[in-house]
Amino acid sequence: MKKLINSPEDFVRESLEGMASAHADLIKVNFEPTYVYRTDAPVQGKVAIVSGGGSGHEPMHTGYVGMGMLDAACPGEVFTSPTPDQMLEAAKQVDGGAGILYIVKNYSGDVMNFEMATELAYSEGIKVLNILIDDDVAVKDSLYTQGRRGVGTTVLAEKICGAAAQQGYNLQQVAELCRRVNLNGRSLGIALSSCTVPVRMAPTFDLGTSEMEVGIGIHGEPGRKRINVLPANEIASMLALSILDDSAYKRVVREWDMENGKWFDVELVSPPFQKGDKFLAFVNSMGGTPISELYIIYRKLAQICAGRGLDIVRTLIGPYMTSLEMQGCSITLLKLDDEMIKLWDAPVKTPSFCWGV
Amino acid sequence: MKKLINSPEDFVRESLEGMASAHADLIKVNFEPTYVYRTDAPVQGKVAIVSGGGSGHEPMHTGYVGMGMLDAACPGEVFTSPTPDQMLEAAKQVDGGAGILYIVKNYSGDVMNFEMATELAYSEGIKVLNILIDDDVAVKDSLYTQGRRGVGTTVLAEKICGAAAQQGYNLQQVAELCRRVNLNGRSLGIALSSCTVPVRMAPTFDLGTSEMEVGIGIHGEPGRKRINVLPANEIASMLALSILDDSAYKRVVREWDMENGKWFDVELVSPPFQKGDKFLAFVNSMGGTPISELYIIYRKLAQICAGRGLDIVRTLIGPYMTSLEMQGCSITLLKLDDEMIKLWDAPVKTPSFCWGV
Repeated sequence: MKKLINSPEDFVRESLEGMASAHADLIKVNFEPTYVYRTDAPVQGKVAIVSGGGSGHEPMHTGYVGMGMLDAACPGEVFTSPTPDQMLEAAKQVDGGAGILYIVKNYSGDVMNFEMATELAYSEGIKVLNILIDDDVAVKDSLYTQGRRGVGTTVLAEKICGAAAQQGYNLQQVAELCRRVNLNGRSLGIALSSCTVPVRMAPTFDLGTSEMEVGIGIHGEPGRKRINVLPANEIASMLALSILDDSAYKRVVREWDMENGKWFDVELVSPPFQKGDKFLAFVNSMGGTPISELYIIYRKLAQICAGRGLDIVRTLIGPYMTSLEMQGCSITLLKLDDEMIKLWDAPVKTPSFCWGV
Repeated sequence: MKKLINSPEDFVRESLEGMASAHADLIKVNFEPTYVYRTDAPVQGKVAIVSGGGSGHEPMHTGYVGMGMLDAACPGEVFTSPTPDQMLEAAKQVDGGAGILYIVKNYSGDVMNFEMATELAYSEGIKVLNILIDDDVAVKDSLYTQGRRGVGTTVLAEKICGAAAQQGYNLQQVAELCRRVNLNGRSLGIALSSCTVPVRMAPTFDLGTSEMEVGIGIHGEPGRKRINVLPANEIASMLALSILDDSAYKRVVREWDMENGKWFDVELVSPPFQKGDKFLAFVNSMGGTPISELYIIYRKLAQICAGRGLDIVRTLIGPYMTSLEMQGCSITLLKLDDEMIKLWDAPVKTPSFCWGV
């Protein structure tokens, strides 16, 4: 595997330096601890949205920092959770007095560290809420994760909640919206090839020349099964039907009681999709798959949805949540309501997400 | 090589169908002959910008059809020129009475077919001008091309000329602007891997596990040399210095005399870049290289430009002119004037280029 890097150890830092240099009008980067933040942060009186996770999934999350989306993002090393220190300092940097929403993908390391950051922020008098994204229907309780993994819905939640914060929603309202987006989003992906983590310089997993991994995790975690590569229409059908036929998904998650400074358990249910629902359809490249192939997947997905009386009213197609140079794709379907549509359409200006301004 | 396709023969058609379905608010696709066009075309009184070329470089050109950029794009089969018939019918579809500018990348097949389409359009009473893009400093007179190849500057010319047409420039003005953009743009790229054309399903060229091709063409054409893979900083330096030190480039091209319906030769010169120049820096992925690595290349490019007293005032970083899933990158530097900056910043809304609206 060849990469455009200088040394594996410098990969994340140099990439962030280049990014900050290329988009100096939108973002700044802080090192020790590392986080990317809006140049105009803190925005007084606005809820700040902060996310983060391992690097290697670019443009998520750093490319989503800017007006109408994230106030800050905390990148860890490749496929490695950022530290509580990063999350806490990012929160302090962007806190405009209306509180912080941490959007957390459901991986054990991320969850643990964001929970710790939440407690640290509380002890410093910063209001924080903490919402999990766990939308991957592939597997339950897998490598690195209890429950379902957090994947494509994260990008959509960051856009929608970022718009809400920009429009003046308070912290409880933004958190409730984020929870609702998560409960209405489902994803599933496949890999045609492995990716290679720079410090290792060997493929994360082995895949035969005619094999694909169904239900791949974004760090190369095993999915549901390994099968021979199928034609694009069959791949699209398999992913779409697994998502559309997923029954109600019930789980208990920990949320933060910011008045009393303690965690409590809450039972959440993702309702099944139904005829007549309106959707945002997101076809994502894992990094190495070109957009021309994503459109072939989307073509079949749209046919399937139309055949079931499901209405795709918004689309997002491209490499938005990648696994380095992995080939493959994922589909995310998010059931939309009118409020979410309005927030999706709202202006956004970040390095990798831009419209309306 | 695995791909998300159904059959190689259906690749282009199905991808276009998916694209049209995903972006029905922006574009429509016509088959037999094949072209993608703005849903609101023809725009009466506006110069229409039409481009095209082989498929496999997506999002170029089809992803650039929409308000403020292209009125139509003609995709050929993968790495194969579209036909004069496609170009003529696209021109008829989008002609709003103010004429058509064909933006043509300098490859022999594209040039020949766009020239034929120009003559056919003339015989049907449509005003057409025809501007070549030949910005690749890698090689002169190579496989498929006389003179320099047309690469990254094409994307920038389409954006800038599309904005000019949207703002009411007449056909001669848009053509002159396009020529000026081309003469002020220079590009060079490298490949870390080959790409695989669907109908062939074997790599276009062989590259050793530690080799890179310097000066790669976007169809996998040979470049200047094949060397061992270098660290990103050395790659960025090599590309940047080749571009920055390129001397005045003089060539004779054919342009169309639309009053008299004949071709004439014109000598054009790309002036060398100089200290104090303002630039748009475009770091492009060949398809399989993730954006995180592009930022590492950009980081070094920005350092080199700063060291030479060159001012990067706009950036574009991502997969905008790809070669299927090829790994590698290209750098394009476009010397900007105030008019070009204003047009670059103007609103645009296409499937893959969007800001300001």
